[in-house]
Amino acid sequence: MSEKWSVLILMGSDSDWEVMQEAAKMLKEFEVGYEMTVSSAHRSPERTRRLIHEAEERGVQVIIAGAGGAAHLAGVIAAETILPVIGVPITSVLNGLDSLLSTVQMPGGIPVASMAIGKAGAKNAGIFAAQIVARRSPETAKRLLAYKKSLAEEMEAKGKRLHEKGHSD
Amino acid sequence: MSEKWSVLILMGSDSDWEVMQEAAKMLKEFEVGYEMTVSSAHRSPERTRRLIHEAEERGVQVIIAGAGGAAHLAGVIAAETILPVIGVPITSVLNGLDSLLSTVQMPGGIPVASMAIGKAGAKNAGIFAAQIVARRSPETAKRLLAYKKSLAEEMEAKGKRLHEKGHSD
Amino acid sequence: MSEKWSVLILMGSDSDWEVMQEAAKMLKEFEVGYEMTVSSAHRSPERTRRLIHEAEERGVQVIIAGAGGAAHLAGVIAAETILPVIGVPITSVLNGLDSLLSTVQMPGGIPVASMAIGKAGAKNAGIFAAQIVARRSPETAKRLLAYKKSLAEEMEAKGKRLHEKGHSD
Amino acid sequence: MSEKWSVLILMGSDSDWEVMQEAAKMLKEFEVGYEMTVSSAHRSPERTRRLIHEAEERGVQVIIAGAGGAAHLAGVIAAETILPVIGVPITSVLNGLDSLLSTVQMPGGIPVASMAIGKAGAKNAGIFAAQIVARRSPETAKRLLAYKKSLAEEMEAKGKRLHEKGHSD
Amino acid sequence: MSEKWSVLILMGSDSDWEVMQEAAKMLKEFEVGYEMTVSSAHRSPERTRRLIHEAEERGVQVIIAGAGGAAHLAGVIAAETILPVIGVPITSVLNGLDSLLSTVQMPGGIPVASMAIGKAGAKNAGIFAAQIVARRSPETAKRLLAYKKSLAEEMEAKGKRLHEKGHSD
Amino acid sequence: MSEKWSVLILMGSDSDWEVMQEAAKMLKEFEVGYEMTVSSAHRSPERTRRLIHEAEERGVQVIIAGAGGAAHLAGVIAAETILPVIGVPITSVLNGLDSLLSTVQMPGGIPVASMAIGKAGAKNAGIFAAQIVARRSPETAKRLLAYKKSLAEEMEAKGKRLHEKGHSD
Amino acid sequence: MSEKWSVLILMGSDSDWEVMQEAAKMLKEFEVGYEMTVSSAHRSPERTRRLIHEAEERGVQVIIAGAGGAAHLAGVIAAETILPVIGVPITSVLNGLDSLLSTVQMPGGIPVASMAIGKAGAKNAGIFAAQIVARRSPETAKRLLAYKKSLAEEMEAKGKRLHEKGHSD
Amino acid sequence: MSEKWSVLILMGSDSDWEVMQEAAKMLKEFEVGYEMTVSSAHRSPERTRRLIHEAEERGVQVIIAGAGGAAHLAGVIAAETILPVIGVPITSVLNGLDSLLSTVQMPGGIPVASMAIGKAGAKNAGIFAAQIVARRSPETAKRLLAYKKSLAEEMEAKGKRLHEKGHSD
Repeated sequence: MSEKWSVLILMGSDSDWEVMQEAAKMLKEFEVGYEMTVSSAHRSPERTRRLIHEAEERGVQVIIAGAGGAAHLAGVIAAETILPVIGVPITSVLNGLDSLLSTVQMPGGIPVASMAIGKAGAKNAGIFAAQIVARRSPETAKRLLAYKKSLAEEMEAKGKRLHEKGHSD
Repeated sequence: MSEKWSVLILMGSDSDWEVMQEAAKMLKEFEVGYEMTVSSAHRSPERTRRLIHEAEERGVQVIIAGAGGAAHLAGVIAAETILPVIGVPITSVLNGLDSLLSTVQMPGGIPVASMAIGKAGAKNAGIFAAQIVARRSPETAKRLLAYKKSLAEEMEAKGKRLHEKGHSD
Repeated sequence: MSEKWSVLILMGSDSDWEVMQEAAKMLKEFEVGYEMTVSSAHRSPERTRRLIHEAEERGVQVIIAGAGGAAHLAGVIAAETILPVIGVPITSVLNGLDSLLSTVQMPGGIPVASMAIGKAGAKNAGIFAAQIVARRSPETAKRLLAYKKSLAEEMEAKGKRLHEKGHSD
Repeated sequence: MSEKWSVLILMGSDSDWEVMQEAAKMLKEFEVGYEMTVSSAHRSPERTRRLIHEAEERGVQVIIAGAGGAAHLAGVIAAETILPVIGVPITSVLNGLDSLLSTVQMPGGIPVASMAIGKAGAKNAGIFAAQIVARRSPETAKRLLAYKKSLAEEMEAKGKRLHEKGHSD
Repeated sequence: MSEKWSVLILMGSDSDWEVMQEAAKMLKEFEVGYEMTVSSAHRSPERTRRLIHEAEERGVQVIIAGAGGAAHLAGVIAAETILPVIGVPITSVLNGLDSLLSTVQMPGGIPVASMAIGKAGAKNAGIFAAQIVARRSPETAKRLLAYKKSLAEEMEAKGKRLHEKGHSD
Repeated sequence: MSEKWSVLILMGSDSDWEVMQEAAKMLKEFEVGYEMTVSSAHRSPERTRRLIHEAEERGVQVIIAGAGGAAHLAGVIAAETILPVIGVPITSVLNGLDSLLSTVQMPGGIPVASMAIGKAGAKNAGIFAAQIVARRSPETAKRLLAYKKSLAEEMEAKGKRLHEKGHSD
Repeated sequence: MSEKWSVLILMGSDSDWEVMQEAAKMLKEFEVGYEMTVSSAHRSPERTRRLIHEAEERGVQVIIAGAGGAAHLAGVIAAETILPVIGVPITSVLNGLDSLLSTVQMPGGIPVASMAIGKAGAKNAGIFAAQIVARRSPETAKRLLAYKKSLAEEMEAKGKRLHEKGHSD
Repeated sequence: MSEKWSVLILMGSDSDWEVMQEAAKMLKEFEVGYEMTVSSAHRSPERTRRLIHEAEERGVQVIIAGAGGAAHLAGVIAAETILPVIGVPITSVLNGLDSLLSTVQMPGGIPVASMAIGKAGAKNAGIFAAQIVARRSPETAKRLLAYKKSLAEEMEAKGKRLHEKGHSD
C-alpha cells in the first residue's frame, strides 16, 4: 500500500472514540494507513461532506462510520460517494438496536455495509476495510491470512489449556 | 396566513405518495398552503438540500418528511435548517419499527418531531403542522378547534348508533 | 417574545425531573419563558386537565410532556388542546421502548410530536419548542441559528483536536 | 345478578367493534348484563369520562376497554374510577406490540388488567369480567365452571377424533 | 370482608419475594387479608395445584401470580380455577419482555389479567385485587377511593413544591 | 425400536394440526413410531397430565409439544416428566415471538428443547426426536445419516441446475 | 453408562466458560461423563469440525454448544453430525435476543435444540443431555427422578418457611 | 476487470433465488462478472466450503451470501476466507429480524458486511461488491458514478412530475 491514508474513520461523537479505536487498532495490525476524526451527520453536515470529498481526493479507499441512536452518518456518507462505506452501530439507550436498524436498513441504490453493534463491530470494520484493501495489496492479504491463522491457533491453545479442567474425572 | 406555501412535504420515494397524501388532505382541511414533492436523503442529497434552502427562502414554516427503513430524511433535513421538522415513519419490511427508530432517536441538538408509523402519522403530521401555523394564525386555530369538536361529535354520533345494538337485551 | 411563560413542561413523576431539566436548559438558552411542574395522566387526571386549560388561558404556546412506561401523558394532553404537544419518552424497565410506542403511536386526529427516549429527547423537546416559538419571534430564530452554528463549530474544533492522535503514524 | 348492565365495554374506534364482540359474546354466555359503545380517549375525552361516571352511578361493576396503537383508553379510564378496568390491546401496524405495552405498562397506583392482543384477549376480557361478577354471584360462578368443564370436554372429544388419524400405522 | 385470607399471592421463586411484597403492602393498605408463598409451575406443579384448590376451599377470592422468563405460573393457575388470576411478569434477562408475553398472551377461554413488569405491576396487582374485593365490600371501596384521592393530592403537593424552582426567572 | 409408539406429539389446539404434521412426516421417514393428539395446557390440564403419564407407562421416549401465544404446553409437560420434551412455537399474532419466548425461556431445573417457529420447527422436532431414538437404535441412526446425505445431494443437484442460468455470460 | 465421555460441551469463547459450567455441574450431578472445551464456529472452524468428528468416534452421545451474538456454533455442529445438538444462547449486547434467534431459528432438516438464554439455559442443557442419556441408562433416569423430586421438596420447604412471614396478621 | 467471475453469489435455499437476482442485476449493470448458485451452511456444509475454496482459486474477489432465519451462511463463509463477505438477510417468519441479527452480530475477528433485509439488501450487495471491485477497476468506478448520477436525476424528474399535483392550489 503506497497511499498515506487509505481508510477514513469517522464517528458522530467524541464519546464514540473508545469504541472506534478498535477499528484503528486492526488497521495498524494490517499496516493499512488510516485517519480518524469526528463529524456528525446532524450537527456538522457540511464538515461531514467536506471530509468525504477531501478523502476522495486524497485517494482514500474505504470509509468507516460509527454512530448511535438514529445513526445516519454511514448513510449520509454513502449518499455522497461511491467509496465502500462500512457502518458501525454504537450502543444506545435501546442497546444499539436503533443504531443497527438506522445503519443497515438502507434503500436500494445506496449500500452501507453494517458491522455488529459496538466494539466487535468496530474491530471488524477495521478488518473488513483491510480485506477490501487486500484486493489490490498482496501484502495486506498475507497479513490477513496470518491473522486468521493466529485466531485459529489461539483457539487451539486455549482449548488445550481449558481441556485439562473441563471434563468429568 | 399570507404565505403561499407554508408547509413543505417531502418524501423519500414516490411509493410514499399515497401515505403522505394524508398530510396534504389535513393541510387542505385547515387551509394551510403546502407543496409536496419527492427527494431522497440518499439518492438525491443535493436536491434535498436545495429544496430545503429554497423553502426557507420562500418562507416555508414547517417541513414534513416521510421515509421508510433507514429513514434518514427527516434527520438530514433537520441538520440543515432551524425550521420545525416533522418525521413520518413509513411502513417497511419490519413493520416500520426501523423507520420509527431511525426517525425519532435523534441526538441532542437536532430535533425531529416523530409522528406514528404510516397513514395515521402522515395525517397527524398535517394536523401538527397546522397547530404550529396556528400559533400565529387565529384563523387556523379556529379551524383546528372546529375539527377537534367534530371528532368528538362524530364519536358521540357513532356511539349512539352503536349503542342500540351493543348491549345485552 | 412577550409572553411570560410560553412553554409548559409537564412530567408524570418527580423522578422524571432530572431528565426533563434538559428541556428547561434549552429554553433558557433560547430565552423562551417556561414553567415546569409534575402531573400524572393517571394519578392526577383532573390536575393535568386544569394545568392545560390554565396554560391555554395564560397564552402558553407549546406543551412538553415527559412520561415513562405506558406513557399516556402527552396523548392525554393532546386530547384536550390544539396547542402543539411534544412528547418525551422516559427510560423504563424496557429501556423506554414502551414509553416511545405509547407516546408516538397516536391515532389519526390527535398528534403528539415524539422526541427520542431520555435526556437527548428532553433536550430536543426544548429546542423544538423554541423552533415553534421562532415562527413568530425573529429573536428566537436568531438564537437558534447561533446555536446550530455553535454545534458545527464545536464539532470542527473537536475534530481538529482528535485528528492529531487519530491517524496511523 | 340484579344489575341491568354490570359490564361496560368501551372501544376507541368503531373499527374495533368486531374484535370487541368477542367480549360481549362471553358475557351473554355467562348471562352477565353489558353495554357496549365507542369512545376514544383522544378524540372524545369528555364523552369517555362521562360514560365512566354514568356507569359508576348505574352500578356497573367492571369496565372493559379495547384500543390499538398508543392504546391509552384503559389507562385513562382507570385514572377516573376504582372499578376494575380490563384492557384489550387491539392489533396494529406493529402487530399490537404497541397496543399491548401502552395498555399493560401502567405506573404503580393505577392498575389496568391487560388481556392478550386481539380477539383472544377480547374473549378473555368477557370471561374475566364474569369471574369478577362471580365473586358475588354464585349463578355466574356455576356457569363459569360449566364453561370450563366444556372446554376440557371439547378437547377430549377433539383429541379422540384426531387420534384416529394421528399415529404411525 | 369476613374472610381471613381473601387473596393468595404465589410466586415462582423466592427471588421474586422482594418484588411481590409490593402486592402485599397494598393489600395491607386496603385491609384485605392475604397469604403469600412460593410455588413454581415447573418445579412444584403438584404443590401449585394443591395450593390453588386449598385456596378455593378456604374462600380465597383472587389469586396473584408472579413469575419471570417463561412465566407460566399465572396461566397454569388459571387453567385450574375460575377465580380471577392476576399475573405479574417479573424482570428477566430480556428485561421482562418474555415474562410479559408468557403471562399475557393467553388463549381464548382461560384469562389471565396481566399487570406491568416488575414492582409497579406487583403493586398494581394488590390494588386490582382490592378493586375486585371492593365489588362486594363497601369498606374496601372507601379505602380505594381514599387512596386514589391521596395520589392526586400528593401530586398536587409535589407539583406546588417543584413549581417554585421549575420556571424561567 | 420395538416400542409401538416412541414419540408422543401433542399440540395445544387442533388448528396446530397442519404445522405439527411436519413432525409426524419426519418420524414416518425415520420409521419411528408416534402418536399425535391435541390437549391444551390451559383448557384441558388434566387430560394433558393424563396423556403424559399414560405415555410414560407405554414406554414413550420423547414428547413433542406445539403451541402458540403464551405457549405453556411444553413447559407444563416438562414439569411432569423426565422424558425429553421438545417444544415447537406456533406462529401467532406476534409472528411467534411470544410463542418462542414462552417455550424457550424455561427456568433452571426444567428443560424444554425449543425448535424454530412454525413448520421448520415442527419438522426439526421430528428429526430431533429421531436423533434421540437413534442413541439406542442403530437402524434409526442409519436412516438419519441417509437423510443427511440426501439433503447435501439435493443441494448439489439444485446447485448444478441453477448454476447454468446463474452467471454473467 | 459405560462411555467415558458421553457429552461434549463446546463454547465459542473462553468468556463463556462460567456460564457453561452450569451444564457441567448438572452432568456431574447425574454422573454423566463429559468433556468441555472451546472452539469457535468462526475463528476455528476446522478445529470445531475435528472436535465433532473425534467426539463421534469416541462415542459421544450428545453435543452442547454455547455461543453469543451471531451464535452459529450449534448450527454449524448440527450441520456435521446426526448427534443431538443442544444450543445455549449466551447473553450479548442485545441481552441474548440475537444469540437466541441465531441458535433456534434453524431451517428444516438440521435441528438444534435451544435452551434459555444464559445460565438457566446452560444448566438445562446439562439436564436435557442427561434426559437423553437416560433413554438407555436406567441409572441416569433414577437420578433425574430424584433430582426432580428434590426440586419439588425444596419448593415445599421454602414455601413453608416463607409462609410464616407472608400473610396479613 | 479481466477476471471471468469476480463475484460469487451464494444463497442458502433456491427459494432465495428471486431475492438474490437483485444482486446479479446490479453486477450486470456494472459489468462485473458473477456466478450464482445455492448451497446451505447447514444442509451442504462441505459443498459450501468447496465452493468458497474453488472461488478463491478462480480469483473471485467478493462473496455475497443470502440466507434467512438462523442465517449462518455468510458467517460460515467468512470463517473460511479472507475475501470480503457481504451478507443479505432474507425475510423470514419474524420479518427477517432473526436473519439480520444472525448475519450482522459477528464476533470480533471475522467480519460480515450486512446489507438490509430482502430485495433492497440484495440489490445493495451487488452495488457494494461493485464498489469493492471499483477499488482497482476505474471502469467500474465510472459506471458506479454514472449510476449514482442517474439515481439523482431520476429523483429530480419524479420530483418535477409529482410537483405539479402536489401542492395546494
